[in-house]
Amino acid sequence: MRSELAPGSVTLVGGGPGDPDLLTVAAARALGQADVVLIDHLAPDPTTFLRPGAEVIEVGKRPRSADATSQDAINALLIEHARAGRRVVRLKGGDSFVFGRGGEEWLACAEAGIAVEVIPGVTSAVAAPASAGIPVTHRTLTQGFTVVSGHVAPGDVRSTLDWRALAVAGTTLVILMGVKNLPEIVAELIVGGLDAATPAAVVSHAFSAELTVVRTPLRQLPEAAAGISPPSVVVVGDVAALEFTHS
Amino acid sequence: MRSELAPGSVTLVGGGPGDPDLLTVAAARALGQADVVLIDHLAPDPTTFLRPGAEVIEVGKRPRSADATSQDAINALLIEHARAGRRVVRLKGGDSFVFGRGGEEWLACAEAGIAVEVIPGVTSAVAAPASAGIPVTHRTLTQGFTVVSGHVAPGDVRSTLDWRALAVAGTTLVILMGVKNLPEIVAELIVGGLDAATPAAVVSHAFSAELTVVRTPLRQLPEAAAGISPPSVVVVGDVAALEFTHS
Repeated sequence: MRSELAPGSVTLVGGGPGDPDLLTVAAARALGQADVVLIDHLAPDPTTFLRPGAEVIEVGKRPRSADATSQDAINALLIEHARAGRRVVRLKGGDSFVFGRGGEEWLACAEAGIAVEVIPGVTSAVAAPASAGIPVTHRTLTQGFTVVSGHVAPGDVRSTLDWRALAVAGTTLVILMGVKNLPEIVAELIVGGLDAATPAAVVSHAFSAELTVVRTPLRQLPEAAAGISPPSVVVVGDVAALEFTHS
Repeated sequence: MRSELAPGSVTLVGGGPGDPDLLTVAAARALGQADVVLIDHLAPDPTTFLRPGAEVIEVGKRPRSADATSQDAINALLIEHARAGRRVVRLKGGDSFVFGRGGEEWLACAEAGIAVEVIPGVTSAVAAPASAGIPVTHRTLTQGFTVVSGHVAPGDVRSTLDWRALAVAGTTLVILMGVKNLPEIVAELIVGGLDAATPAAVVSHAFSAELTVVRTPLRQLPEAAAGISPPSVVVVGDVAALEFTHS
């Protein structure tokens, strides 16, 4: 890791699941050097790491809200502040490349001739299940896991996923942003051959005092998840039946 | 996150891809409080974070070596040190639950009545590709990614994966520990319907001065990967053709 942010550069920082303690050492240091921080709704609070005078710009993105800044506008802000010679940090929840649109920001900056540094983060796709005592892989149960965005329904023309193939692939399935479309997703998985009794879980507010975990067979997952407040992560697979206890 | 390790407890810490700067703030703090640290071959060097007098025990696991401590022996060590009233940290590379056998250690400790805390880490499955400029998800290309262990070949009776289903699932495929079995894996993916011209990449020594990236079409992946020194991560999918440049 580069230990000094360069003036006029953009650093894409994955902020982890929300608790500031789950920022990396490199991320904390970058925040301490930043002149300006563009921050998402689900990113951890960076306040304790910032130097005096650092500017914080909230750019969304709260799901389905009108107040979020568009991706094009975020890209433009990153470039504008970097061109002004500032040390720019783009802070998100989780990892910038797990549905974080980090690739788009990277590309926009690169096309504008702006130097980009990447600091990877703890992804909620793995950490949120762990917070509930669910390992996404477990030696005797599964040799892999699949992380998908559920915000596009299985029947939607925009879907790039084959949910029936995922049903039989043998990996733990971790679904982000999928609560709304769970009825269609679960139906498609069962049609595809996944046992309706497969263990499933919904984990919300991982690594916080508001942690909520609901466990249910796959067939009852949509009903079980309906009342859970976001952000939540859905896990489908035998590992969802495990329940290690925290101290 | 609990901010104090309890005497007689075990904390499972994911150490990230290898650079100590990619430890989390919580992980660094836990290391600073540890009485004893059980460390893997691929874990980051914890030295700068340790307090004077902390004991470090190397327990492997170097792939295919005879000097690694067995998992049962590791579990026994965790329990023994915790029962002696020590603050025990179990430090691994990546995340403890992405093929880290953290679930087994958690279970063994829980059965022994030992309190367990979990600190998630940055998984190399996402970070290593990012180190090479490859986002595992990208909005226009894929709505998901699959992380699998390749250490069991597709035809092996121990395999729990359906590689032909993975071939058509539509997710980026990230293969860990798979270089040895790549000929069989690639053959199975192509038989399953994945285009032999699909972009692929091998990333080794992520986030270090020894970073090596080889890009190749899927059909030439086994040959391209053969000379790469571990640890390496294989990425298969359209995102592997992306190549953002670092500063």
